[in-house]
Amino acid sequence: MSISFTLHATDGAARAGTLHTPHGAVPTPAFMPVGTQATVKGLTPEMVRAAGAHIILGNTYHLALRPGDEIVRDLGGLHKFMHWDGPVLTDSGGFQVFSLAGQVKLTDHGAKFKSHIDGAPLELTPERAVEIQQNLGSDIAMVLDECPPADADPAKMRAAVARSVGWAERCKAHHTRPDQAQFAIVQGGLDLQLRAECARDLVAMDFPGYALGGFSVGEAPEAMHAALPACAACLPAHKPRYLMGVGRPQDLLAGVASGIDMFDCVMPTRNGRNALAFTSDGPIRLRNAKHRRDPAPVASDCACYCCANYSRAYLHHLFAADEMLGPTLLSLHNIAFYLRLMADARAAVTEGRFAAFHAGRLARWNAAP
Amino acid sequence: MSISFTLHATDGAARAGTLHTPHGAVPTPAFMPVGTQATVKGLTPEMVRAAGAHIILGNTYHLALRPGDEIVRDLGGLHKFMHWDGPVLTDSGGFQVFSLAGQVKLTDHGAKFKSHIDGAPLELTPERAVEIQQNLGSDIAMVLDECPPADADPAKMRAAVARSVGWAERCKAHHTRPDQAQFAIVQGGLDLQLRAECARDLVAMDFPGYALGGFSVGEAPEAMHAALPACAACLPAHKPRYLMGVGRPQDLLAGVASGIDMFDCVMPTRNGRNALAFTSDGPIRLRNAKHRRDPAPVASDCACYCCANYSRAYLHHLFAADEMLGPTLLSLHNIAFYLRLMADARAAVTEGRFAAFHAGRLARWNAAP
Ligand SMILES: [Zn+2]
Ligand SMILES: [Zn+2]
Repeated sequence: MSISFTLHATDGAARAGTLHTPHGAVPTPAFMPVGTQATVKGLTPEMVRAAGAHIILGNTYHLALRPGDEIVRDLGGLHKFMHWDGPVLTDSGGFQVFSLAGQVKLTDHGAKFKSHIDGAPLELTPERAVEIQQNLGSDIAMVLDECPPADADPAKMRAAVARSVGWAERCKAHHTRPDQAQFAIVQGGLDLQLRAECARDLVAMDFPGYALGGFSVGEAPEAMHAALPACAACLPAHKPRYLMGVGRPQDLLAGVASGIDMFDCVMPTRNGRNALAFTSDGPIRLRNAKHRRDPAPVASDCACYCCANYSRAYLHHLFAADEMLGPTLLSLHNIAFYLRLMADARAAVTEGRFAAFHAGRLARWNAAP
Repeated sequence: MSISFTLHATDGAARAGTLHTPHGAVPTPAFMPVGTQATVKGLTPEMVRAAGAHIILGNTYHLALRPGDEIVRDLGGLHKFMHWDGPVLTDSGGFQVFSLAGQVKLTDHGAKFKSHIDGAPLELTPERAVEIQQNLGSDIAMVLDECPPADADPAKMRAAVARSVGWAERCKAHHTRPDQAQFAIVQGGLDLQLRAECARDLVAMDFPGYALGGFSVGEAPEAMHAALPACAACLPAHKPRYLMGVGRPQDLLAGVASGIDMFDCVMPTRNGRNALAFTSDGPIRLRNAKHRRDPAPVASDCACYCCANYSRAYLHHLFAADEMLGPTLLSLHNIAFYLRLMADARAAVTEGRFAAFHAGRLARWNAAP
């Protein structure tokens, strides 16, 4: 088997474990920085590693369009291509087809769409999604799924679940790469009955890991938080659980509290590029003039490269002057913040104090001005 | 004295030396990466150091406008502000006033102009240029000079020289910072008689170092190459000589051959951001489709971080996908290339084979497709 998962401790529903992959071990709960186009935007792999990352994400849709999965394969695979020797998870591209591509025509066979880059007609089937990810050579590949918006009507939601289950089966049948694990994706929106049925069908297929898709697609965060415990509980306890594309720091903690092990989100890097820093006392907007003369680091409790060496005044200057180093330094800090949040959550679970840790973090964020 | 200069070897007019500064020693001939706005664009100071840099440039005009030299002073000076603990040279801002600012009104008193950022009216006098640089706390400060374009008429050129000499005297009189050295700037365009007169007047003032300004301002490179030996020969042999804002790799070697010790230029970083790489066999344009599947590094004879870890195919992909890491990696390579060129030139001078080294490099560049 390509991956294995060990649970070390539980605290309520929250879990602390280790995910073993062909490219190394990942302590969980884990946050995975997003390297959509084979690069975590603005950072070298060494910076990502130094920020505390053990595993990163690549994007099937983007990489299949550019540079092309066969080029990546011919150049030795995604790890070598992007100079990251740790584990990589690739999502299936389903989400991007529905969110980015133009004029998607969806059938049970697959998704016909036009590239968001040049409008070229393309098709993504479950089998093609598997092939792309096998060419990329990620440690963990995701099945192709249909991800409806949060406000899809019940019939459409039910149909998407049925199609996703069928596609998962086809992905599993088509998958051959022994050094790659394939995770299934549970859909069903906020309908817990539908989520349970979807999970039941996918669990019966015995995937090595399971993801919850279709969250952070327009629903209120509170609705997601309320749904997560039941959704996570439908998944096998001895396998890793991955909440896709979520979210704010408080959403990650809600996920950990519900028994989720893995997360990814573009928020740390996207917000970093926009001069917004995450801290334990709430967000900081570095473009704000009040930081113009501030010698303090972004976060005094952060040991990241940005906070160890630069002032808020310097970051304010970099963003005012439109200098590349600003987005780089703040992306680095934000990723380090997310990673340390997960490391702290893991320690709290291990020491049986996760509920207090969770409440304490929420209280600090809620007290933020 | 704030700096000292030791000559280790000469080979023809070419020189190998060491410039000692309050923030460390600089082997010469030296290339100084440009950190206009208190950052070498897209690179951390650690990357700049790892590429081989010993000294970097900051810009008086830009930093006085933003963030303001008093803010930099209050935050501990430019070194601390930008997290670079090596030597820094700041130019005086004269060149930027004439090239960037709008509606410059020039008198013997100084330059009145409008900020290129917000149009605010500002004045740069010799005294103010000194104060700004003392606030920044650079190791080497430049006097304010008037830098006319290459095609200025003889009367204007002569007047600019006279004004620059007068301003140099005022800068020297106003300078008080003991841990900062002040370099004078010789103007005079391509008029060697005028250059010699300007140098004579400035040398009489006994500055610790001398620069040649007013090159790479529109004249043909060959004209500059022809003028450099005589211009350099007007300067004291025991003091460092700096050719400002020049240039292409072949221009730097022409400078070294003429007895120049220090160089700066934005070409390595600016071209890096535009996907052009310097190599010993001529420039490479990474956006070119022929690099799409090329597993080779940018330069097989380069040990920089970019060449050690990434393929041309990956760089091509980064630029095609408009990813920040492309400009970062190629800026890094180009700076490493310039720095290694200077290190190789230094070794050649030390070993008495500079002429052969120079000819060999030119032959490779001229043979490039
Ligand atoms: Zn930090
Ligand atoms: Zn290189």
